[in-house]
Amino acid sequence: MNKTHYRTHTCGELNKSCIGKSVILAGWLDSLRIQGKIGFLSLRDRYGVTQFFLNPKLAKKFENLKKESVLQIKGKVNARPDKQVNKDMSTGEVEVEASEIVVLNESEPLPLDFEHASEETRLTYRYLDLRQPDMQNNLMVRHKLVKAVRDFLSDYNFVEIETPILSKSTPEGARDYLVPSRVHKGKFYALPQSPQQYKQLLMVAGFDRYFQIARCFRDEDLRADRQPEFTQLDMEMSFFQEEDVYSLIEKLMKFVWKKVLNVDIKVPFPRLTYAEAMKKYKRDNPDLRKKKDEYAFVWVTGFPLLEFNDEDNRYYALHHPFTSPVAEDLDLLETNPDKVRAHAYDLVLNGTEIGGGSIRMHRGDWQQRVFKALGMSETEYKAKFMHMLEAFKYGAPPHGGIAFGLDRIAAIITGNESIREVIAFPKTKNAESLMENSPSEVDKEQLDELGLRIK
Amino acid sequence: MNKTHYRTHTCGELNKSCIGKSVILAGWLDSLRIQGKIGFLSLRDRYGVTQFFLNPKLAKKFENLKKESVLQIKGKVNARPDKQVNKDMSTGEVEVEASEIVVLNESEPLPLDFEHASEETRLTYRYLDLRQPDMQNNLMVRHKLVKAVRDFLSDYNFVEIETPILSKSTPEGARDYLVPSRVHKGKFYALPQSPQQYKQLLMVAGFDRYFQIARCFRDEDLRADRQPEFTQLDMEMSFFQEEDVYSLIEKLMKFVWKKVLNVDIKVPFPRLTYAEAMKKYKRDNPDLRKKKDEYAFVWVTGFPLLEFNDEDNRYYALHHPFTSPVAEDLDLLETNPDKVRAHAYDLVLNGTEIGGGSIRMHRGDWQQRVFKALGMSETEYKAKFMHMLEAFKYGAPPHGGIAFGLDRIAAIITGNESIREVIAFPKTKNAESLMENSPSEVDKEQLDELGLRIK
Repeated sequence: MNKTHYRTHTCGELNKSCIGKSVILAGWLDSLRIQGKIGFLSLRDRYGVTQFFLNPKLAKKFENLKKESVLQIKGKVNARPDKQVNKDMSTGEVEVEASEIVVLNESEPLPLDFEHASEETRLTYRYLDLRQPDMQNNLMVRHKLVKAVRDFLSDYNFVEIETPILSKSTPEGARDYLVPSRVHKGKFYALPQSPQQYKQLLMVAGFDRYFQIARCFRDEDLRADRQPEFTQLDMEMSFFQEEDVYSLIEKLMKFVWKKVLNVDIKVPFPRLTYAEAMKKYKRDNPDLRKKKDEYAFVWVTGFPLLEFNDEDNRYYALHHPFTSPVAEDLDLLETNPDKVRAHAYDLVLNGTEIGGGSIRMHRGDWQQRVFKALGMSETEYKAKFMHMLEAFKYGAPPHGGIAFGLDRIAAIITGNESIREVIAFPKTKNAESLMENSPSEVDKEQLDELGLRIK
Repeated sequence: MNKTHYRTHTCGELNKSCIGKSVILAGWLDSLRIQGKIGFLSLRDRYGVTQFFLNPKLAKKFENLKKESVLQIKGKVNARPDKQVNKDMSTGEVEVEASEIVVLNESEPLPLDFEHASEETRLTYRYLDLRQPDMQNNLMVRHKLVKAVRDFLSDYNFVEIETPILSKSTPEGARDYLVPSRVHKGKFYALPQSPQQYKQLLMVAGFDRYFQIARCFRDEDLRADRQPEFTQLDMEMSFFQEEDVYSLIEKLMKFVWKKVLNVDIKVPFPRLTYAEAMKKYKRDNPDLRKKKDEYAFVWVTGFPLLEFNDEDNRYYALHHPFTSPVAEDLDLLETNPDKVRAHAYDLVLNGTEIGGGSIRMHRGDWQQRVFKALGMSETEYKAKFMHMLEAFKYGAPPHGGIAFGLDRIAAIITGNESIREVIAFPKTKNAESLMENSPSEVDKEQLDELGLRIK
């Protein structure tokens, strides 16, 4: 299945059963040792490393080959002498006696030394950085993680649905990235901070169980481990109560951890109320690990709906403005907003919040009361959210959901501190791409077309 | 697995084996017939429709229930009398004798009549439009299509890798959407027209086989069936020649058509050179169907590399500037550019180009000659593509790829003319969202932060 017109096998494929075969391999020159007149060459690809024996003629001809050159090598598979068998390599029982070497692309000396490269250098030459075994593994594990999530959710009747990236500006929290419209000069799309409204509208549309591996955007002043764009496992379910969310997500996590790490995690996860967590751990994302190398999940529940901000003297939604209050607290919205509890929950893993969600309001009258409690005038919330209030009129089912920071989960699973290690082409803290040099200046004509001027 | 705290079964689940059981269902009121004192009620969800029998008390109490209200109904499963068995319904052998009806959310009368609604109205109330069985089916089939693609490619050692949406402006062809940077005032990101450069860099990074279900963006004046954002099945493979692409893609299509439509398509697909297609069919996307309901695939190959544009008196890349010329035509680049053939190919299905790709240049010197043939100065192409030329220095493998219009494939598979029918929340021809009203005006403060002024 890996055979192409360039190769018969990959560099991770040959073993004892291939002895005597003629093979063609292609890959990168990993190392070359000339020992007297003969030579040993290691060829590398994503699948592994294969050792080649070079006869005196080939050793002489290619003695100056640069590392990381791309080669195609023909040869015959031999058993390695017992003493030279390398049990740590999948191909360690054989070596290939090279008969012909074709240089497909010669490499210049690499512009960086990975062991001592700064992150800046690594990001500038990201395409080389990604050749490192750790980086290869990080992206492979991420692929497996996402595949496991998709397989599980598809089996549980979830439908994956793509929602727009060219979206509408939302009023709360972090800043939106804006996209000027050429056709409607002076107007803007916004890149979504999450597909929140779309997924709720999909519940109104009767899709019942939705998910998406969704790209989300926030133009924040970057803290240590934030990215201007990040990936969310976004889910929404109809006819769900809090307990249904807990039970489904525990099954999902159990499946994923088994599939990707072959680790059995214990479910159900323990739970803490927000009040308990703050009292006992002084934080809402406690680290409950008792020993190293453990995966300690905990649900944090019972969050307040609103949070007062002294600076601008108003309430903010602790999760987001679509979170449902607990029914019996509803009348406190106008009299004692601090006391209103929310049907909101976070999933915390080893002291990191990996996901959060809530049961939503599916009634327009409740939604309007919350908008008002957030200090929005009727004119304001209707301008922003008329479509949501309208949608709630025509048979919106009870629904709830959750979203997980996929980059964070991938980082934890691969044992990395930074999400930049599990993103193929990340931005710096300054929201720049050092590799391709973006953001960058654009032509005056482009701005003219958009009806914009730089101040 | 569909059981939640709101329901024991879905509306598509009950059959003879459930007779005698007490059940709770939740869904939308599809129809209500009062016959004398009793009533028959149909409850609908994504999974199907279940008929309920209402005794005189319930019939009286709920006789004015509005269609599309969300209900939870408890009852007991009975066999239908033989005469009333409905073979067309998965639940047609049973009915549920209702004992209690809870109105979870009462609907107002729907603001549209689907049979006569204009597309404008349908898009304004997209969350209701999506309740229609055809639309539900379209998005379900799209989910299955994408799942089949992912399963196949994962089995073939492809790695799914996400590439940035906040990207760099590219010079060729259609217009980029720009995203102003707040941190770097006066500079812009661009939304990608395709992940072309990133996927080639992933080949340089040694990932060998990459794919992505990638969102792409083009700010074109919209023709009939274009969308400002669309979805591409994007693939790139190392150590591939043209024949390797054909063979892999034929296997992929065969798998997908079997899985999604249970249709056996014949491979290998026929091939036509561009010249043959133009001569015989006067088009490069001929419709080779001999009978209706057939799927007629054809590869179109042997495209010229460049195309002269009389208006601005210069050459353009027929595919894109990274397409590899046929080696023996290379020296025609400077003398007779029209004659240079490309390693480019399109896959055409029933007269629609569903995908196109090429073997790429992996050598910087060739790439620079093509940039020059496209009329770019060295300063210009280095400003735009330095990272690509740099990457080609350090062991870029021979590679090639292809990209498919996933929206188009989904439309063909579901028998729709328009891709808007297979996109959950599409934009109009005018690039507007009528549902949420975007693009929209933004606050002056937001523009100030971006250092922009509207002219």
